Amino acid sequence: MPDSLRRALRVPAAPIELREIDPRSTPLAPGDKERTREATRLDATHLAELQQRLYAEGTGGSRRRVLLVLQGMDTSGKGGVVEHVVGAMEPHGVAVASFGKPTPEELRHSFLWRVRRALPGPGKVGVFDRSHYEDVLIGRVRELATPEVIERRYREIVRFERQLVADDVTVVKVLLHLSPWEQKQRLLARLDDSSKRWKFDPADIDERALWPQYQQAHATALERTDTDTAPWYVVPADRKWYRNWAVGRLLLETLTELQPRLPEPAWDVDEQRDRLIEEHPIAG
Amino acid sequence: MPDSLRRALRVPAAPIELREIDPRSTPLAPGDKERTREATRLDATHLAELQQRLYAEGTGGSRRRVLLVLQGMDTSGKGGVVEHVVGAMEPHGVAVASFGKPTPEELRHSFLWRVRRALPGPGKVGVFDRSHYEDVLIGRVRELATPEVIERRYREIVRFERQLVADDVTVVKVLLHLSPWEQKQRLLARLDDSSKRWKFDPADIDERALWPQYQQAHATALERTDTDTAPWYVVPADRKWYRNWAVGRLLLETLTELQPRLPEPAWDVDEQRDRLIEEHPIAG
Repeated sequence: MPDSLRRALRVPAAPIELREIDPRSTPLAPGDKERTREATRLDATHLAELQQRLYAEGTGGSRRRVLLVLQGMDTSGKGGVVEHVVGAMEPHGVAVASFGKPTPEELRHSFLWRVRRALPGPGKVGVFDRSHYEDVLIGRVRELATPEVIERRYREIVRFERQLVADDVTVVKVLLHLSPWEQKQRLLARLDDSSKRWKFDPADIDERALWPQYQQAHATALERTDTDTAPWYVVPADRKWYRNWAVGRLLLETLTELQPRLPEPAWDVDEQRDRLIEEHPIAG
Repeated sequence: MPDSLRRALRVPAAPIELREIDPRSTPLAPGDKERTREATRLDATHLAELQQRLYAEGTGGSRRRVLLVLQGMDTSGKGGVVEHVVGAMEPHGVAVASFGKPTPEELRHSFLWRVRRALPGPGKVGVFDRSHYEDVLIGRVRELATPEVIERRYREIVRFERQLVADDVTVVKVLLHLSPWEQKQRLLARLDDSSKRWKFDPADIDERALWPQYQQAHATALERTDTDTAPWYVVPADRKWYRNWAVGRLLLETLTELQPRLPEPAWDVDEQRDRLIEEHPIAG
């Protein structure tokens, strides 16, 4: 398996033209919807196993962990990935953090402050549903900061992620690449389904009007912050079954490469077994 | 369904004699192992739905949340409950915290400090795998604090949990009640399975020798801290299939009673639908 999907979905070299990537495409998919879903289920078992090993390794003193950063326009499926891909792993080994509009307290700190506080501990798979990238995406499109500040943030992000990597965090950054047509269908579906209506926000429609600006902001952010140690992947996201398979597969390739190892016991198995078998009877 | 299992498993009135509760018993189980597992799967779907509603309610400004406190001897299945019961809910809506041996930083603060920091946010189901109760359990058995301090802690816990309830946290406390014979089998199984060996700690056998003291410490803790607003349940835990069903069911009864409600939209559905349909074309 090595890193074939990671190679296929790795963001292209600058200048990045997102419109050249078809959101309905399904690179390296194992087959049609049905077959791909089946493959996703198989991968999920494998992924859960590897994640448990990583967790075990963490209890043995290793500081290695994984951070999956999910970005994408509204309805691109960040929540769906958390539910279907991350949900297949053990809750103990997973830490999901969402980043919405900054709180007044968060605004008093650097934009990286809230992100640092949410980093996964050793042995964990952390997931950021939105992230520090919001500050160079909506931050840029909505002019929440000057162009100079935005420029500085790109450099701060690269430095920050370099520190993470040095601190044994494997960073996987995913842009869920959605088409505006598909977003429209999903927003209409949210409006029509009373059980999903709470996810809808009229402001989502205002943001849609800025679609080209957002695409540009994404392209620039990816160009400035894609590095070999903290790479960006663009996952076509119009087809949910492909999106789930692809993100799961990116994680699987990453964890397979990490080869997490169960810690070696510092005691003798036979000796401990004898202790248990020969102990005095215990009054329940 | 109302609160039948909660009534059946609610800790008896003082003086509590844990040895009078059979760890192999299966109160109100819907049938044998096979049928109970099937019921657990059905409950899981229902539970996931209610948890999503609670989460949605939280996005609408409600501060309600649930805190499940799991206590029990080693191998009693706290991890199993997290995997099988909590794992069925959406990772977004769940926050799992484990409390091991306190770190030097934690020791510099009150025993409730680390627990307060891990409380679930609005709309979430928080799970404590071990908790502030360790400080009156191992704390008492291993004499890590004087009897006076332990006595004070019971009162502090009651006060703390009363504050939680006032702050819209629904507290569900579960003691997974295991027999020493079953624990022995599970420890032996851990030793024999190389993929689970990392979970074994020779100190677990030392703690076993203090089984009666732990039972007494549990009984006293339950007597002092069981309240109508933060009740204790004793779940017989020798049978994993019963344990999973019972904890899921306790959560289900709790969430059913809460009746979480989807937030009412502050906007008009038809108007938003029209806006979407009539918008200017967007250049992808």
